[in-house]
Amino acid sequence: MAISTNSDRQIQELQTLIKGIDYGMLTTVNDDGSLHSCPMHSIDELDTDGTLWFFTSANSHRVSEIEHNQQVNVSFTSSQNQRYISISGTAQLLQDRQKMAELWKPELQTWFSQGLNEPDLALLKVSIKQADYWDSRSSYHPQHINLS
Amino acid sequence: MAISTNSDRQIQELQTLIKGIDYGMLTTVNDDGSLHSCPMHSIDELDTDGTLWFFTSANSHRVSEIEHNQQVNVSFTSSQNQRYISISGTAQLLQDRQKMAELWKPELQTWFSQGLNEPDLALLKVSIKQADYWDSRSSYHPQHINLS
Repeated sequence: MAISTNSDRQIQELQTLIKGIDYGMLTTVNDDGSLHSCPMHSIDELDTDGTLWFFTSANSHRVSEIEHNQQVNVSFTSSQNQRYISISGTAQLLQDRQKMAELWKPELQTWFSQGLNEPDLALLKVSIKQADYWDSRSSYHPQHINLS
Repeated sequence: MAISTNSDRQIQELQTLIKGIDYGMLTTVNDDGSLHSCPMHSIDELDTDGTLWFFTSANSHRVSEIEHNQQVNVSFTSSQNQRYISISGTAQLLQDRQKMAELWKPELQTWFSQGLNEPDLALLKVSIKQADYWDSRSSYHPQHINLS
């Protein structure tokens, strides 16, 4: 069932859906066309224009994959709530110190021990084009959120 | 850290990792290159040659995507055990009645109400090439299982 509300409400709905899910699985495309995923710590916030942010190391393998192919998927799973969310979008790497300071959360120190002073700390900006979700209410058929 | 054991042990290890996780998120590539994922009920069994099986409807959108591009990723998430698994492989559709009867589980009736008599019931065969996993022991760096 397509949701025909405006973009703001759809983003708010998506924000509510992913809230409290600590990790998203980011899927990227390798040069040989194979698909790989890895857990990304969620900072639990969506920009009002439909952007997801993750902290990453600028030298990681996933970043070199994204430089070759920007298409990504981020899935969020809450088995407790029987909720499964697929977010399709494009990703780009940003080393914007101001944005990093704005988004930084203390728990990220687990992966980036030097915090905001980590030399190759970077942001992954995921511009959301479409989201689909399944939950205990929707059963087999997904609900769609279209932001493109 | 690469695990240098033989293929049988690696498949057994992967089997142990995904055991008890009810759903995997299957990511496929759309014709326009965008990536989409959807929850697939896990039948909790890996073939000894490194094959994952899922029941699907032969007419679903994900199947038409796979007919155009066989590359898929299946991710399994257990937030309780802080375990995140990425399985990279290729998928194909099979309508093998004998294999379906062998793999069928009663809980699948939730999605396929007519059971094995469901007209467009089919199997998705995922041939695993590589798996990576992260858990509370491995922290930021994944463990690799290579089956190709």
